[in-house]
Amino acid sequence: MKLLSHLLLFLSCCLWSTSAQRFVRFISDDGKEYYGDAILPDGSTDASQSTQARLIQGDILDDFEITDQVKSITKLLSPLPSERVRTVRCVGLNYVAHINETGQVIPGWPILFYKPWTALNTPSDPIPVSEGYQTQGNFTSKMDYETELVIIIKKKAFNISDDETLDHVLGYSVGNDVSHRGWQIDRGGLPQPQFSMGKGADGWAPWGPAIVSTNEIQDPQTLNIWTKVNGVTQQNSTTANMIFGVKHLVSFFSMGTTLFPGDVIFTGTPSGVNLGKQDPDWLVEGDVIEVGLENVGTCTNTIKYV
Amino acid sequence: MKLLSHLLLFLSCCLWSTSAQRFVRFISDDGKEYYGDAILPDGSTDASQSTQARLIQGDILDDFEITDQVKSITKLLSPLPSERVRTVRCVGLNYVAHINETGQVIPGWPILFYKPWTALNTPSDPIPVSEGYQTQGNFTSKMDYETELVIIIKKKAFNISDDETLDHVLGYSVGNDVSHRGWQIDRGGLPQPQFSMGKGADGWAPWGPAIVSTNEIQDPQTLNIWTKVNGVTQQNSTTANMIFGVKHLVSFFSMGTTLFPGDVIFTGTPSGVNLGKQDPDWLVEGDVIEVGLENVGTCTNTIKYV
Repeated sequence: MKLLSHLLLFLSCCLWSTSAQRFVRFISDDGKEYYGDAILPDGSTDASQSTQARLIQGDILDDFEITDQVKSITKLLSPLPSERVRTVRCVGLNYVAHINETGQVIPGWPILFYKPWTALNTPSDPIPVSEGYQTQGNFTSKMDYETELVIIIKKKAFNISDDETLDHVLGYSVGNDVSHRGWQIDRGGLPQPQFSMGKGADGWAPWGPAIVSTNEIQDPQTLNIWTKVNGVTQQNSTTANMIFGVKHLVSFFSMGTTLFPGDVIFTGTPSGVNLGKQDPDWLVEGDVIEVGLENVGTCTNTIKYV
Repeated sequence: MKLLSHLLLFLSCCLWSTSAQRFVRFISDDGKEYYGDAILPDGSTDASQSTQARLIQGDILDDFEITDQVKSITKLLSPLPSERVRTVRCVGLNYVAHINETGQVIPGWPILFYKPWTALNTPSDPIPVSEGYQTQGNFTSKMDYETELVIIIKKKAFNISDDETLDHVLGYSVGNDVSHRGWQIDRGGLPQPQFSMGKGADGWAPWGPAIVSTNEIQDPQTLNIWTKVNGVTQQNSTTANMIFGVKHLVSFFSMGTTLFPGDVIFTGTPSGVNLGKQDPDWLVEGDVIEVGLENVGTCTNTIKYV
C-alpha cells in the first residue's frame, strides 16, 4: 500500500512536470507573438526576468500542449490579450491595514467593482494619463498605485461553492489597480467614492508578467506582495492578510453570475498607498511603478502624460 | 437658391428612407436569427409590436444594407447579441426627482458604474433570481426596476467633445437596470452602496426592443419614459429631466477611455422606483415589468426564481 502511494506520488510529479507553470505571451526575436511556459533564470522566480520560454500550442483557456521548442523572449505582453478578458472584476477594501489607513470599516461581504477590458495593460508599457486626469487649476491629479494578486478564471463558474473554486482557476498574476483619487473621491460627486471614473481609463490595469498555475502556487494566501515607486518600497505585505481569500471571492462573485474563461479578478491591495499617507507623493509623469508578487514576478510601468 | 435647398431636402429625405430606423434582431418563422429594420404596425411606434421586418445584410455596427426582403418576426431578441457588447456603462442619479426620493445629493459629474455583459437580456425573457438574491431569514430580497434610455455606440470614441457625440452613436433603446437593494445597500458592506453586487447578476439588464436610429430620434431629450409593474404605472417621466444628457455622457465617459462599437450606456432612471417609496412593493416571482420609451417601445420581462 505504501509502495502504491509512493508510485502515485511519483507519477503525479511526472504529470506536473508536463503542465505549464508560468503561462506567458510574448514577442520573440522574429517579431511574432507566441504563448509559452516561461523558463526562469537561475535563482529567480520572477517571470519578467525570463529570456526564454517553451512554446505552447493550442489555447491556454482550453486544450493546449507544451512543446519542446524553445523561443527567445524579446518582450512580455499581458498573459492574455485584452480582447480575451471579457470581464475585469476588482475587490475593494480587502486588507485590514489598508482599510485602517483609508478610514473605512471592515466590510461584511466582498466589495465588488469593475474596470472595462480597455483598462488592461502589459507588464511593461506606459500608464497613459489623458489631460482630464492631469492637474488643472485647483484640481489635483492624485494618481496612486494599488498592487494586487490577480485570479484568472479557466472554466465557467456559476453558483459554485468555495471548495469548487480551484477547479475553475487557471492561476495567478500580479496587477496594478491604478487609481485616481481626484476623480474617485474629490470629484466623486457623492458622499461615497466613485470607483469607476477613478480607475477605469485605458491602460490603468497592468498585469502579468505570467499566469502562474495552481499547480505551482498551491496556496495563494502565503505570498509576499509589494510595490516600489522609483525603486523605493511603498507597499510590503502578504496575501495572508486578505480578509476574503481567493476561494471565497470566486464563489461569491459566481452568485447568480456566470464567470467566463479569461475573466480576471483583482483581489484588493494592502496598506501603503498614497491615499493612506499624511504626506502623499502622487504619481506624476516619469514615475516608475513596480508591483510584485512572490513566485509570480513583477510588472514595471511608467506614468506617461498623453 | 430656394429651389436648390428644396432639392437637397428632398434628396436627404430619400436617403433617410433607405437608412434603418429601428434595428432589430429576431427569430423568424424558419427558426433562424436575422437582423432587420422593423416595420411598425399602423398607429404604433412600439417595435415590440412589430410582426415583420426588412432584412438587413451586413453588420449594423459597420457596413450594412437594408434589403427589400420582408421576414416575419416570431421573437425579438436584444438588438445586439450580448457577446458583441463589450462594455455596459450605467449612470447613477441622473434625474433630480429620483435623487430626492432616495435622499441623495445632485452630483457634480456623472456617476458611472458598470454591469458585466452577462447581465444583458432580451426584451421578453425572464429575469432570473438565484437563491442568493431571494429572501432568506431576515435578509429581504428587495428587487427593484429602473427604466432607462440606453445609448448604443457605433464608432470608437476617445476624448471626444459633446458636439462630436452623435457621430459616434448608432441610436437608442430602452432598458431595465434591475437592482437588488438588499445587496446594493443593506449588505453593501460599507457606508456607501455597492452597485456591482446589487445590479450585475445574469439577465439583470433587459434591453430593446429595437435600436432606434439617430435619424429617427434627432433629440433624445424629449421622450416620455415609463414603467408598469403588473400593468400599473410606477414610473412616468421624460428624458428632458435628465441632469446629464446623451451628448455629455458619451463625451464624458470617453475621457481617457476608448468606447467601442457595440458598447451601451444606461443613462439613469427617473423617480418612482421601489427604493423611493415609503411602502415598497419589492418584485417577487411572477411579477411582470414593462419598461417603455417613447418612439422606441417596450421590454416586458417576468421575475423568475431559479
